Amino acid sequence: MKFVQKLKNASQKNNSLLCIGLDTDLEKIPKFLLQEKDPIFSFNQAIIDLTSDLVCAYKPNLAFYEAYGIKGLEALKNTCEYIPEEIPIILDAKRGDIGNTSKMYAKAIFDEFKADGVTLNPYLGEDGLSPFLEYEDKCSFVLCLTSNLGAKDFQLLKLEGKPLYKIVAEKVKSWNKKGNCGLVVGATYAEQLKQIREMVQDLPILIPGIGAQKGDMELTVKYGTDKHGELAIINSSRGIIYASSDKDFAKAAREEAKKLRELFNLYRKKVRNLDP
Amino acid sequence: MKFVQKLKNASQKNNSLLCIGLDTDLEKIPKFLLQEKDPIFSFNQAIIDLTSDLVCAYKPNLAFYEAYGIKGLEALKNTCEYIPEEIPIILDAKRGDIGNTSKMYAKAIFDEFKADGVTLNPYLGEDGLSPFLEYEDKCSFVLCLTSNLGAKDFQLLKLEGKPLYKIVAEKVKSWNKKGNCGLVVGATYAEQLKQIREMVQDLPILIPGIGAQKGDMELTVKYGTDKHGELAIINSSRGIIYASSDKDFAKAAREEAKKLRELFNLYRKKVRNLDP
Repeated sequence: MKFVQKLKNASQKNNSLLCIGLDTDLEKIPKFLLQEKDPIFSFNQAIIDLTSDLVCAYKPNLAFYEAYGIKGLEALKNTCEYIPEEIPIILDAKRGDIGNTSKMYAKAIFDEFKADGVTLNPYLGEDGLSPFLEYEDKCSFVLCLTSNLGAKDFQLLKLEGKPLYKIVAEKVKSWNKKGNCGLVVGATYAEQLKQIREMVQDLPILIPGIGAQKGDMELTVKYGTDKHGELAIINSSRGIIYASSDKDFAKAAREEAKKLRELFNLYRKKVRNLDP
Repeated sequence: MKFVQKLKNASQKNNSLLCIGLDTDLEKIPKFLLQEKDPIFSFNQAIIDLTSDLVCAYKPNLAFYEAYGIKGLEALKNTCEYIPEEIPIILDAKRGDIGNTSKMYAKAIFDEFKADGVTLNPYLGEDGLSPFLEYEDKCSFVLCLTSNLGAKDFQLLKLEGKPLYKIVAEKVKSWNKKGNCGLVVGATYAEQLKQIREMVQDLPILIPGIGAQKGDMELTVKYGTDKHGELAIINSSRGIIYASSDKDFAKAAREEAKKLRELFNLYRKKVRNLDP
């Protein structure tokens, strides 16, 4: 099954645009979990158990697992295996290398961790991404405009009046021959998100930057979704998974996830009623 | 000790600008090694044993280890521990994320694998790199102009009238407050390497792209080194480590490494005699 279909199925079944970022940090999880054999996996397991009916995807960021070495990566592998089959897993890896080497990264992400999607960095150009694009049923989310301040250093610079992030969006559109590309656009740049969505009607857009980074939620839903109110994958990490540091952390995460899902759906309804 | 000092020490002691890329691929190493308990580590060990007096650095590319999952990363960790203390290890990881997450990557690279240097992708801008720059004695090699064809997609575009790779070089120069930045410039772009070296006199430049990618060796030495004939780290991977697929593979690697070292030194001498 193509990624976009898998995403739509999960999103429709759970009536959700919400993606939960599994950025699990041993210094932030409830202290009592540290006695467990694999605290990272135990934490993720509890979160997944109580949220998998509320999300359209999960997005573990590889950095958090690599930071704990071999043990961290074992926890990631267990987590990917534990996530219910019908929920897409997007590994936030921001990879990109020259062709020969990117092939090995693609093998790691798609064969070893069995992720459905991955985030990639465009700086090395087409041949750096093409080994990922050979996986027809997976999705390559290319960084277009990131949610952080540093986005201004290069991504917002202009070539003949056109900012680099738009050039990236155009290129990715042209690389989407197998229907397996997506973009990453930060919620902190609402106006630009609108312009990008207009350029790529049928690409899924992964949108980090609400929550701790304070992206506007209503505008994110309004500008990030396609004309059917779909294909936006709106990520929240810290705000959900660290909602409580007590025994009830997973229940608290569920409540936060529910709130966000309802809010996104309220905005979806509002947008569609305003612009029929 | 600062990275640049460690690099100069190794480079002077071994009279070498050569960096060997440990891109160890189970499909390419001699078949008889596959019976070993950890074939990747056994291969690297043999290569290191016979080349550590010929190099200024080793550069394992993380992709090749991640592709083999947990086992691959164990092999990488063992390899990093095995490399003699006086030889700098540059982990070719091409990482880059937003600040909060980059901190975890920096932890993985510098604390977990204990690398001396790392390659980073500039697309996310300053706050994505700053957690790496906090490690004063390590070196962050930022991708400037890569050796592959895809470099033309974005890196060679002129933004605000100047090619993106030059904007990156200028930014990295301005971020080099602790003397712990470097650049990655492909040998396949000799003229641009010259321009970049003129811009950043005191930064180490990591130069892939000779060998399989056919970058010009003489021009690489001429343009990549600083005025003392130093600070160029010229990488060769496949041409050295796969010089033979027989029992004598490490000996063959040594011969290739020796040849390259001598060639680089010949060009160093020639350049200095021409331009006293």
